[in-house]
Amino acid sequence: MSAEISAAAIAAGDRRALARAITLVESRRPDHRAAAERLLDALAGTGEAMRIGLSGTPGVGKSTFVEALGLRLTARGERVAVLAVDPSSARSGGSILGDKTRMERLSRDPNAFIRPSPAAAQLGGVARRTREAVRLCEAAGYGTVIVETVGVGQSETLVARMTDLFVLLLAPAGGDELQGVKRGIMEIADLVLVNKADGDLAAQAARTAADYAGALRLMRPRPDDPEGYPMVRTVSAATGAGLEAAWAAVEALAGARRASGAWDRTRAAQRAHWFDEELQAGLAELLAADPALARGLEAARRDVAAGRAAPAAAARAALAPLRRGALDASRDSP
Amino acid sequence: MSAEISAAAIAAGDRRALARAITLVESRRPDHRAAAERLLDALAGTGEAMRIGLSGTPGVGKSTFVEALGLRLTARGERVAVLAVDPSSARSGGSILGDKTRMERLSRDPNAFIRPSPAAAQLGGVARRTREAVRLCEAAGYGTVIVETVGVGQSETLVARMTDLFVLLLAPAGGDELQGVKRGIMEIADLVLVNKADGDLAAQAARTAADYAGALRLMRPRPDDPEGYPMVRTVSAATGAGLEAAWAAVEALAGARRASGAWDRTRAAQRAHWFDEELQAGLAELLAADPALARGLEAARRDVAAGRAAPAAAARAALAPLRRGALDASRDSP
Repeated sequence: MSAEISAAAIAAGDRRALARAITLVESRRPDHRAAAERLLDALAGTGEAMRIGLSGTPGVGKSTFVEALGLRLTARGERVAVLAVDPSSARSGGSILGDKTRMERLSRDPNAFIRPSPAAAQLGGVARRTREAVRLCEAAGYGTVIVETVGVGQSETLVARMTDLFVLLLAPAGGDELQGVKRGIMEIADLVLVNKADGDLAAQAARTAADYAGALRLMRPRPDDPEGYPMVRTVSAATGAGLEAAWAAVEALAGARRASGAWDRTRAAQRAHWFDEELQAGLAELLAADPALARGLEAARRDVAAGRAAPAAAARAALAPLRRGALDASRDSP
Repeated sequence: MSAEISAAAIAAGDRRALARAITLVESRRPDHRAAAERLLDALAGTGEAMRIGLSGTPGVGKSTFVEALGLRLTARGERVAVLAVDPSSARSGGSILGDKTRMERLSRDPNAFIRPSPAAAQLGGVARRTREAVRLCEAAGYGTVIVETVGVGQSETLVARMTDLFVLLLAPAGGDELQGVKRGIMEIADLVLVNKADGDLAAQAARTAADYAGALRLMRPRPDDPEGYPMVRTVSAATGAGLEAAWAAVEALAGARRASGAWDRTRAAQRAHWFDEELQAGLAELLAADPALARGLEAARRDVAAGRAAPAAAARAALAPLRRGALDASRDSP
């Protein structure tokens, strides 16, 4: 693979260039990394998709839902990209072929771009590669980018920080049956969809939706959103029932946030967050570059975690060598 | 004020030494800061209180509750410290006299130590000074440290990161009446108490508790906690009804977490978190020490927030001067 990919090819919507660019941001090779950074910087400010995060409980029918929604959007001539985040693929080998197999019709649609989770060998930082892949799809002119997470570890929080709206897909369940919704997911949901609202499960899906609407009303008031709290709808990915209404809810929410300025504020805050993350990563690299300093930091962190040292004093002592270095550097500058 | 305070005096439970030590950690003077760090390091690993975070909606009767609970504990011979966190006091002038006035009986109790929010002039970092004040109270032998937040800004998250259990105090409310619970508070609550469960409001308090118990069951399953989700109780700080049961719930939760090892894991993770925070603060200080570097970082962050530059490339470029300095420093080391 040549490391250089033209920004113009991406901007022109060249699918092969986009696929290669995503492989580039997934790579850990230093020359690939440098090329990826140049490419992203050249594309800064181009394209703006609606970025949608999606999570769901196991067995809820996420792929069927994404395919059904995606096909509806592409049928209107819209372009849709689907990215998968699976932090566990480094361990399990990932769902490399799974996504495309599951979304067979959407994957053949010329207006859709589906990118499964990378194989372990290609894994860079999960957050960085996914965020950068979102940017690439956006720059390539996809108007909707869906970032689907398999719901392992902290992936929802991570995805919420790189998307505009977060959709949580639930299955119909009885009142006393816990859904196994992971801690922290309900907090970031902008829209809760109860899937499988068809046939025998339709009534139960409606009850589940009412239960969650009640709970969200008590626990997650959002005065600025169209309904004052996260919206809840029932859908059936299998029959298509409720999908248009669910998409209308997405658009109503996006419209309200654009009008209030919240949309742009969130985007700016997200970008600042990712800058700070990159800054921390860069500083961590600096610290690691000096083995003695890195060992000192590790020992200090262990002492603090064990309660043998106080955080402030330990951090100050561990940073002392770098402090001298930085002062030397600042004296060298004019 | 002499900057040196003896660790032995704190450990011996000298109230005056404790009060002066907290003033020391609140100070921004470099010599005070250095003395505070020495003192905390000397006290590392001494004492272990149950640290309880407390928040509540406005007008819920927080001070009455803390006083009633505190007096019950001191009546058993236990020692209780109450610290207030008010990040807004830098702006408003704070509730310097308020707390002691409101908790009149508890403040006269020899087994209680009440420390109101510091005045604006003494403010160091809110997180650091509160966390360090908690440590000092613990080292001084207070078995229960209550950290009360006025519920402004991110103070609950901050308090949750320095306490073992988080208690949320609510007022009775009708089903459709939103409580004005701030986003993110419900997520960190280990125990929800509906106060004012007396007289005319008793029935309404019971209904409110049932509503929240139902909502928490759906939205916050906690399989490892005694009841499988955050506990909800009704109390009356005015009559004392339910206070013993509420404290029993606190002790049951603490017991379960100690037995499962979750208690120690959380403590270790919190200490590691605070070490990382101190490390970031130290690194930020290093960056700020070089005005050209600091200006470059600020400009880069603005460019990224505005979407004019990509995070990774901008961070790398902004850190380049420090990178040279660090490499020089590492070459100097043996």
